[in-house]
Amino acid sequence: MNLETVSTNRSFGGTQGVYSHQSEATGTAMTFAVFVPEHEAGVKLPVLFYLSGLTCTHANVMEKGEYRRACAEHGIIFVCPDTSPRGDDVPDEEGYDFGKGAGFYVNATEEPWAKHYHMRRYVEEELPAAVAANFPADMDRQGITGHSMGGHGALTISLRNPGRFKSTSAFAPIVSPLNCPWGEKALTGYIGADKAAWREYDACALIEDGARLPDLLVDQGRGDNFLDEQLKTHLLEEAVRTAGMQATIRLHDGYDHSYYFISTFMADHIAWHAERLCA
Amino acid sequence: MNLETVSTNRSFGGTQGVYSHQSEATGTAMTFAVFVPEHEAGVKLPVLFYLSGLTCTHANVMEKGEYRRACAEHGIIFVCPDTSPRGDDVPDEEGYDFGKGAGFYVNATEEPWAKHYHMRRYVEEELPAAVAANFPADMDRQGITGHSMGGHGALTISLRNPGRFKSTSAFAPIVSPLNCPWGEKALTGYIGADKAAWREYDACALIEDGARLPDLLVDQGRGDNFLDEQLKTHLLEEAVRTAGMQATIRLHDGYDHSYYFISTFMADHIAWHAERLCA
Repeated sequence: MNLETVSTNRSFGGTQGVYSHQSEATGTAMTFAVFVPEHEAGVKLPVLFYLSGLTCTHANVMEKGEYRRACAEHGIIFVCPDTSPRGDDVPDEEGYDFGKGAGFYVNATEEPWAKHYHMRRYVEEELPAAVAANFPADMDRQGITGHSMGGHGALTISLRNPGRFKSTSAFAPIVSPLNCPWGEKALTGYIGADKAAWREYDACALIEDGARLPDLLVDQGRGDNFLDEQLKTHLLEEAVRTAGMQATIRLHDGYDHSYYFISTFMADHIAWHAERLCA
Repeated sequence: MNLETVSTNRSFGGTQGVYSHQSEATGTAMTFAVFVPEHEAGVKLPVLFYLSGLTCTHANVMEKGEYRRACAEHGIIFVCPDTSPRGDDVPDEEGYDFGKGAGFYVNATEEPWAKHYHMRRYVEEELPAAVAANFPADMDRQGITGHSMGGHGALTISLRNPGRFKSTSAFAPIVSPLNCPWGEKALTGYIGADKAAWREYDACALIEDGARLPDLLVDQGRGDNFLDEQLKTHLLEEAVRTAGMQATIRLHDGYDHSYYFISTFMADHIAWHAERLCA
């Protein structure tokens, strides 16, 4: 796999890079960002994947997420993929919540999406391989997190791949696509109307069906416009309580859905991952 | 003066706001950002002004500057003005280094710029008055910093107003507009060809002419594309050495001109200002 370096910038003693490669999963070029902290030659570092939300590219969290200080402090590589395939030949729809910028971390089976929209396979298989091959990454120490649609991605990918991620967290995740308009639109469009097929893309349903994480950290703002209709954090609270699964789900007065919220709690999440990845 | 609230977001326990007001200095609406950390009712906090560089609005540092954690920790209000007047009736030129986004913190005397381009008066007089009137700001404890063109602004405004700012710093400042293409273009255009009139807009010339700061912190990347032709940090080193003025001017291998550089050293600068503002 050939990785093209789009840009590198020195930051917090390490290197913030942007890279592009040809993806078999999506049949397109894919761009992702990687921060590699300063480290001794030959040392391999734990890796934290961050999956972004609707409308985002790799760049939003890279510019606004404020993760580099904490990653430099703890010695963690931070990887930020795009949220969908891109390009003129990739189908799209009007609206911010389907098509480009809204891949929903699924493998699409419905046309015309099935040709390119395979963000599940990209994030589960191809991206980790690219990271392992090109960066000083210890793939035995992976964590995953994400925001909103990316929180949904982090939760579902980790729940479906037990043992792969030593740590899982999320910022304001969509916890149950089966039970919100964003999820219904995306899964109907990408996967089809059979809701039985949706359960592997629903964190609450995966937990109901027996999947477990050893631990989980979730932060959610009470001032988030999307909380009641789309995010429904209480469904995740119920699922983990019913399952007896360890989880810390924190609600914060006044915080909204933006990067002003994410950046506030980013260092906490990285420290929490570091406890599980760097011990 | 009526201040319109454009937006507020809770962040790091405080409030990141964006505000707009009608400016007499520029004859336009002006937008600025203010972060107010969590604080006890009735307490007044020190204020740090951050002046941005070419092409920026108030938003660049607000999104990418990573100042909120340190401001929350030290209890400092952070104020980010725009870099020029804006609006359809404000004259502009092609090119990123003159006109909109490039006010250069001068009071223009040349036409057609003299009607609106009064960023010196705006930042020296009108913005502090707006901050004092609308936020819990202790105007006896002001600091100033900035980046590139904004570093030039911070240095020259502080040098021309002895005693107003208890602390002054800069990131990759233009230290001598008399001696670089950006400065020559801007000052010729806004002020005219008489270089004697430029000296009050040149940090090195102000120091040569007797202005002093009690102390100064400057960070500059050695990998900055603009260092040799535009920024010329060595001219400031020579000026402070000749003047016997206390200053810490640090050069950093590998760092460029971007917010990846600024954000790396932002917390250092805020801590440095805090030592002088919060003692």
